[in-house]
Amino acid sequence: MIFTVTILGSNAAVPVLDKYPSAQIINIDHKYYLIDCGEGTQFQMLKYGIPKDKINQIFISHLHGDHVFGLIGLITSYHLAGRNKKLEIFAPSGIEEIIKVQLRSTGKEELCYQIVYHIVDTEVHQLVFEDKLVCVYSIPLIHRVPTSGYLFKEKQRAPKINKAIVEDFKLTPEQIKDLKNYKSIIAANGERLLPEFVIVHKYTPVSYAYCSDTAFNPAICEFIKGIDLLYHEATFLTVDNDQAIKSMHSTAKDAATIALQSNVKGLIIGHFSARYRDHDLLLQEAEAIFQNTSIADEGNVYHLDA
Amino acid sequence: MIFTVTILGSNAAVPVLDKYPSAQIINIDHKYYLIDCGEGTQFQMLKYGIPKDKINQIFISHLHGDHVFGLIGLITSYHLAGRNKKLEIFAPSGIEEIIKVQLRSTGKEELCYQIVYHIVDTEVHQLVFEDKLVCVYSIPLIHRVPTSGYLFKEKQRAPKINKAIVEDFKLTPEQIKDLKNYKSIIAANGERLLPEFVIVHKYTPVSYAYCSDTAFNPAICEFIKGIDLLYHEATFLTVDNDQAIKSMHSTAKDAATIALQSNVKGLIIGHFSARYRDHDLLLQEAEAIFQNTSIADEGNVYHLDA
Repeated sequence: MIFTVTILGSNAAVPVLDKYPSAQIINIDHKYYLIDCGEGTQFQMLKYGIPKDKINQIFISHLHGDHVFGLIGLITSYHLAGRNKKLEIFAPSGIEEIIKVQLRSTGKEELCYQIVYHIVDTEVHQLVFEDKLVCVYSIPLIHRVPTSGYLFKEKQRAPKINKAIVEDFKLTPEQIKDLKNYKSIIAANGERLLPEFVIVHKYTPVSYAYCSDTAFNPAICEFIKGIDLLYHEATFLTVDNDQAIKSMHSTAKDAATIALQSNVKGLIIGHFSARYRDHDLLLQEAEAIFQNTSIADEGNVYHLDA
Repeated sequence: MIFTVTILGSNAAVPVLDKYPSAQIINIDHKYYLIDCGEGTQFQMLKYGIPKDKINQIFISHLHGDHVFGLIGLITSYHLAGRNKKLEIFAPSGIEEIIKVQLRSTGKEELCYQIVYHIVDTEVHQLVFEDKLVCVYSIPLIHRVPTSGYLFKEKQRAPKINKAIVEDFKLTPEQIKDLKNYKSIIAANGERLLPEFVIVHKYTPVSYAYCSDTAFNPAICEFIKGIDLLYHEATFLTVDNDQAIKSMHSTAKDAATIALQSNVKGLIIGHFSARYRDHDLLLQEAEAIFQNTSIADEGNVYHLDA
């Protein structure tokens, strides 16, 4: 069972050598979900071995270029590769026009696959996507343009049954199903089997939230309370808090304060302004408030399944 | 005196690890001109030390994504950096809509600098830009969408005068100007000085042409006859000529044939299909027809000023 977060980029808008703008990959049991898609995301996928064909859902936080300019390239590459699976894009209003104008101008008005655009209401916290593995919720953020964070809540996974017991007691498929649904059964030999006796591993679902870009906004704490891992932008140091307020971004202290107040287990910070050469200063500022903090460097893989 | 061509990318449309889509920088005496702007071009500029603020003219061949998807990122970065110089973009019709829709959707409708769009007529060979250093001409190419190559013809540079002679004969600024204009003069001592006697170095202007993307089209030979260096796309090997014809691209043999028929001094080939892992095969196919061929690898710098 796998639940990982891979950082493809977390740079702020001004380009920096060897840094890439925002993009992250969630891998849940080899199903891949992309969050944000800054310029160069498809090249970063190649670099870090992400099988881009396994992505069927893309979640865009907002329409600033460093979060979305790589999307048209990815969409075009899917077409060139002959994709036939539907692609779902979740984003604030306006995304469809951006993509369609470019497809028309580049002679690719008719793609060989379907894109379904889901407009995300950036004012509310609600379910925006669900499949067998995960529920994804919007998180209303405060930024200069409509912006949504995303909360990935893994679903409870079916428990595993001890195979030796299945054989010893000659359990039928129906009996196995009952046990997985936490019902006790009577085996062929008349013995009563309790679920807790045959279930090897009761899995604890994990949860991850992506909050970028946003001004300091404690209102989000209720949505991300107790989650396993939070990515929160930390564009500035507190010494530049006036810039953070003006541009509706957060400081490293803000990010750590959100993590602390939400009682999350771990915090990743990124989206640092190009003015900072020494990222340790941002890390130290966050760690002073929330110890379990790390920096979202390109290629980092966070295992929530550990 | 400098005239260089730096390859930032020359990959075809399907992404390949460590390769970048089309973009080249012409540096003429520290004035920089950008040809094409595939996704990631601004990151490649950082990698190869190109001072992007010194670019005032961008020439786009056509609106396929691998030649243009990096433009919006570059334009946005100029804005974030507070650019105040005018930026001129030369491109086929449609470019302005692509850029404006994205600027509007990303909240950057009002840039802090001016963009002037020059629509290039892709049907004719004509002057499209001129400054003190260079004339740039369009080259009509044949592709699936309107496409123009670009011919950079350096202007004659002012000759240099032997400084010792200036001092020995006590030449006046007026006399120096006449000599630089190839007029003979009478020095203060009554001696007649001929221009060829005082001009140290008569510079031979150089010329460079960029032809991508295009089907095999010998009609362009008359426009690029005898130039110093030609970049010509070579998407396919001849064995895949049916693909070249169908997609309106060239083979390595086509590119070399154009170079030979145009009597150019050197040829660069690139824009190879992702199907080819061994680029030496493409090089060999071209070299069999035109010996002085090289491959446009990222970071290559070609000195026409040598």
